[in-house]
Amino acid sequence: MPEATVRIRVQFADVDGSRRIHFTAMFRYMEVAEHELMRNIGLPYATALEMEGLAFPRAHLSCDFRGPIVYDDELDVSARIARVGTSSWTVAFTARNCRPPHAPIVAEGEMVIVSMDPHSERSTPLPEQLRATLQSAMER
Amino acid sequence: MPEATVRIRVQFADVDGSRRIHFTAMFRYMEVAEHELMRNIGLPYATALEMEGLAFPRAHLSCDFRGPIVYDDELDVSARIARVGTSSWTVAFTARNCRPPHAPIVAEGEMVIVSMDPHSERSTPLPEQLRATLQSAMER
Amino acid sequence: MPEATVRIRVQFADVDGSRRIHFTAMFRYMEVAEHELMRNIGLPYATALEMEGLAFPRAHLSCDFRGPIVYDDELDVSARIARVGTSSWTVAFTARNCRPPHAPIVAEGEMVIVSMDPHSERSTPLPEQLRATLQSAMER
Amino acid sequence: MPEATVRIRVQFADVDGSRRIHFTAMFRYMEVAEHELMRNIGLPYATALEMEGLAFPRAHLSCDFRGPIVYDDELDVSARIARVGTSSWTVAFTARNCRPPHAPIVAEGEMVIVSMDPHSERSTPLPEQLRATLQSAMER
Repeated sequence: MPEATVRIRVQFADVDGSRRIHFTAMFRYMEVAEHELMRNIGLPYATALEMEGLAFPRAHLSCDFRGPIVYDDELDVSARIARVGTSSWTVAFTARNCRPPHAPIVAEGEMVIVSMDPHSERSTPLPEQLRATLQSAMER
Repeated sequence: MPEATVRIRVQFADVDGSRRIHFTAMFRYMEVAEHELMRNIGLPYATALEMEGLAFPRAHLSCDFRGPIVYDDELDVSARIARVGTSSWTVAFTARNCRPPHAPIVAEGEMVIVSMDPHSERSTPLPEQLRATLQSAMER
Repeated sequence: MPEATVRIRVQFADVDGSRRIHFTAMFRYMEVAEHELMRNIGLPYATALEMEGLAFPRAHLSCDFRGPIVYDDELDVSARIARVGTSSWTVAFTARNCRPPHAPIVAEGEMVIVSMDPHSERSTPLPEQLRATLQSAMER
Repeated sequence: MPEATVRIRVQFADVDGSRRIHFTAMFRYMEVAEHELMRNIGLPYATALEMEGLAFPRAHLSCDFRGPIVYDDELDVSARIARVGTSSWTVAFTARNCRPPHAPIVAEGEMVIVSMDPHSERSTPLPEQLRATLQSAMER
């Protein structure tokens, strides 16, 4: 599956004094969808990625909020590979609010993940197998 | 002061399994600096902003990570008004890592805050006094 | 159902530099199970409880950790009503780690929720219907 | 100093839909005070404790909330060694709300930290120097 979708309920701990979602919670949800995506394409962080001896810090994150998200809403958060570069890849996200009657997009975001040598702390080309798998997941 | 800087120590709860900062923590730090900025320019969220009867949801957040941030590092996180629009304003952030010998920028970010009528859930022009104060804070 | 069980995967944001769960995450999980329990017994916080005009702050929380919980583990977190008092009730929690071959209890906790008048900021007797529903959920 | 006190402002991200502190935030604050205490007695987690080759998971946490804590309050959170056992120690916490006119205790808590061999995942006696330092910090 080139796209992973996770259904996430907005918890009470995830809203702030405005009763709307606190933006940090949306970034956590994005990560949940991203890890699910990696599991789906056979690259779970728990095992496969660690074997490379590399670290995968996030170089960039962004999120646009397009509609209200409040306590107890259920969101479908989707992640897909949007770009594969030499030493990084980009995951794009959409969050839809499942509240009836329709499911409008309430947030969209992006995450750039870098392949890094943890000893030199410098970016390093993606290992060939990782790059091929990401590329293939993007094109499907 | 047109800029607010808060010194924040990276807590153990703020790092993830990589021992580096989890990105959600940086977004929390940005908000700490933003609220300090609002206090400094005489618009503390705790009092002044609520009086307007408006809500101030965040429409956009982004962050670029430029260097390592690990447990126990102390960061100077600065916030300044970068743009004042008709119904929104933008706050720009820089985080410097205080670890000697120098203090490189390790993260930069941006936040767009919208003036919203909480009943209609639509954006609404900034009240004149708020707009004037933000404008003046930007130009200093 | 007198007990609610939610399956929760330990996210990367939920672990700290030790790669084990950070304790704050377990308290969030407990709340997820508690809100599910309230939904199950017909008292969802999103609607029913707010109608009473009361607030329900938590007066006490505790958790004992009994075994390892690491990134990507799946936990079954269960909540049940353990005690119903005059102006408070107690929810008890167990977390089991679903990793094969068995599912040992890795954490146990408790939460005391107080019925409070938000104006006087003082505890107040539980409304009769709330008390009856909690009592009945406990005895089943 | 046998006691460490940190002043912490309740951030917007730390409150929930009730505009009161979310309980997970108080547990984060407790950890901030605990790490400060360890720094003060010469056992900073960043360096000294790691050198032992041991892990220090938390076996128990509890917190009693005794008064209101809302957005923008400033708290003085204090930590002190309350007990030193064979393979664990207990840190006790108090949080005072600095809002004038007085500073009542709004929360009290406790944390039990276990000395663990990360390979066997079993508790192990505290190294003698650690035990002596903790004991001496408790008795002052």
